Amino acid sequence: MFKINEEYLKLPGSYLFSTIAKKVAAFSEENPEAKIIRLGIGDVTQQLATAIIDALHKAVDEMGAAETFRGYAPDLGYEFLRNAIAENDYKARGCEIAADEIFISDGAKCDSGNIQEIFSKDNKIAVCDPVYPVYVDTNVMAGRTGTYDPERETWSDVIYMPCTKETNFAPSLPKETPDLIYLCFPNNPTGSTITKSQLQEWVDYANKNGCVIIYDAAYEAYISEADVPHSVYECEGARTCAIELRSFSKNAGFTGVRLGFTVIPKELKAGSVSLHSLWARRHGTKYNGAPYIVQRAGEAVYSEAGKAQLKEQVAYYMRNAAYIKNGLKDAGYEVSGGVNAPYIWLKAPGGMTSWEFFDDLLRRAHVVGTPGSGFGPSGETYFRLTAFGSYENTVEAIDRIKAL
Amino acid sequence: MFKINEEYLKLPGSYLFSTIAKKVAAFSEENPEAKIIRLGIGDVTQQLATAIIDALHKAVDEMGAAETFRGYAPDLGYEFLRNAIAENDYKARGCEIAADEIFISDGAKCDSGNIQEIFSKDNKIAVCDPVYPVYVDTNVMAGRTGTYDPERETWSDVIYMPCTKETNFAPSLPKETPDLIYLCFPNNPTGSTITKSQLQEWVDYANKNGCVIIYDAAYEAYISEADVPHSVYECEGARTCAIELRSFSKNAGFTGVRLGFTVIPKELKAGSVSLHSLWARRHGTKYNGAPYIVQRAGEAVYSEAGKAQLKEQVAYYMRNAAYIKNGLKDAGYEVSGGVNAPYIWLKAPGGMTSWEFFDDLLRRAHVVGTPGSGFGPSGETYFRLTAFGSYENTVEAIDRIKAL
Repeated sequence: MFKINEEYLKLPGSYLFSTIAKKVAAFSEENPEAKIIRLGIGDVTQQLATAIIDALHKAVDEMGAAETFRGYAPDLGYEFLRNAIAENDYKARGCEIAADEIFISDGAKCDSGNIQEIFSKDNKIAVCDPVYPVYVDTNVMAGRTGTYDPERETWSDVIYMPCTKETNFAPSLPKETPDLIYLCFPNNPTGSTITKSQLQEWVDYANKNGCVIIYDAAYEAYISEADVPHSVYECEGARTCAIELRSFSKNAGFTGVRLGFTVIPKELKAGSVSLHSLWARRHGTKYNGAPYIVQRAGEAVYSEAGKAQLKEQVAYYMRNAAYIKNGLKDAGYEVSGGVNAPYIWLKAPGGMTSWEFFDDLLRRAHVVGTPGSGFGPSGETYFRLTAFGSYENTVEAIDRIKAL
Repeated sequence: MFKINEEYLKLPGSYLFSTIAKKVAAFSEENPEAKIIRLGIGDVTQQLATAIIDALHKAVDEMGAAETFRGYAPDLGYEFLRNAIAENDYKARGCEIAADEIFISDGAKCDSGNIQEIFSKDNKIAVCDPVYPVYVDTNVMAGRTGTYDPERETWSDVIYMPCTKETNFAPSLPKETPDLIYLCFPNNPTGSTITKSQLQEWVDYANKNGCVIIYDAAYEAYISEADVPHSVYECEGARTCAIELRSFSKNAGFTGVRLGFTVIPKELKAGSVSLHSLWARRHGTKYNGAPYIVQRAGEAVYSEAGKAQLKEQVAYYMRNAAYIKNGLKDAGYEVSGGVNAPYIWLKAPGGMTSWEFFDDLLRRAHVVGTPGSGFGPSGETYFRLTAFGSYENTVEAIDRIKAL
């Protein structure tokens, strides 16, 4: 008789955003006249930039003629895209990353979920608290997190690094030494960042203690301050301890296009085994490449026209971020984030829990946000709003909140 | 100090098709004048059908306007595609499969690699021998296969079901009862099939013994004989024991477009836990949907124009299959397959091993095929040729082989 993976059953409830979707659908059914504004899930709303649309049409035409048709992509991605990434995201910032250390994928969610697979089950993970839930959830599914405490909403074998108002929403080096450290900067959900010298401390710590840093830089395009690093490889020694995850979802609006990449430097090794070779093996065995047309769209992100258009798109969303942040501040809310990230992190007023505020905001302002507690115990009583709506909707949502 | 997943190191050598690619690249470098014809990897060569190209362009345009832009897809796929699949692939064949039992993905390779994850590590798998290597390799990476015997090229905890000339290249019910049974019909690599009544025996066996059948029907579009089932759900009782994997790669030329799906009926349960809910949880946590434009391309596969054009495309490849099969027969080879599948399975002549014949064919005819031994021990001394080349190349390759 077959048996299921019992680890899956340990996951409490369903994935955060599925729960939100269900709550909103129920409210919407009961209140069909309500004009709901969604500033919850981090999904973009602006159309793809012209340079990307042009590249997509061109690639589609190529797929329509036998001479230019493309079948299976190279296992690790097309060279045209890997070269563009190496040049623009790394060499241009003084980071030494070769094209063949870049693995193209269909998005950072998949990569951040799958990367734990190349590590042993008995590695101990450390995560920022609060943080993107996929890091912990995928380690639960792999049986790496021990037992769940439903009261504290924590796992016995996970090292939580609280990022609170007191720490300026940055993590401190953990007391217990972890094996894998997930860092996400600019941070989802708090919108906070750390400076290059702070990140250097993490890299030094990882090298000294034999840890691997899994560095999620999905929001790097939103960095506006000079001393905030865009890549972990800006730090000395990162090539021997860090993996970096990147996405095209937020800098280029690819949430429905699906493209991302993971960087694993060849020096990152356990004894004689390089993590690069393990991830290559995973890609070769369980993955079959991102679509050719999508990889061409990714290439267009790095064209001169693409860069200019996307700079404008990021500015559009950051104008929303400023409107949200300033509006809530004016209304007396305690807010952070929104300067180097498209996320605004606010304290629920009047002692409400995160979900209480979620329900209150949905009911009274018809605005959807994300409960901070969904990102970890230290997120309780906090709330995340995203700057990815249209400007008009963002203004209306904030004005409604201010009017409460 | 972090530790790696040691299971990965058990995998002998690299993935079959990577090895072939390296050998061909080396030969090509030494013999730059040789016009190599590739009938090895099962990659298509014909351009996408007009109906699909039109759908792609239209969807790209939608992504270029804010009003029609699409961000994250629904977790399990767009309804327009799931409805088209339920209607055309199932209802039209008398199979009772609902749209919400269909999970859209970026291809059958990923699904066939990931599906094992929802099962416990101590399940025992049974595979046809020879078969597509991904089933065994991904179970090796999960630590489910015991120890490797390099001499026999088999794993101690895998039940191999030999598919040989004596069994008409079909598997027999195993003596030892497995938990998970991988079946692939039409079979890759042998091109063989089983009848509906034979498949019914497997379904009955699975229901009786508490097994799950993982049924890979990636090549169903090539079935030409009436008594060969297109779906496992044509059999009575399959809803309580079978998962089906499907691909758009071979019926619509999507190897570089990436689209597939997995069907899990809601009745398929371990106690009170449905496998449907586990797979939904995996999708929701580790995957972020197939691109919108690609899902629209998938929808076009089921349009009237799409169906007509793809019928022609399949006929094009099957003309190649017939040419290969007849040509090799004329030349005295022992051949099978090629009637309900785009694969021709042949016995290496003169007592050669599979890899000896690979090298011989590459050296003397500049034709690339796939060594049967790469698909399992019973594939030794066999060889796979695919019908996915252009007609001109196929004719030239076979004529070269005949001239040897």
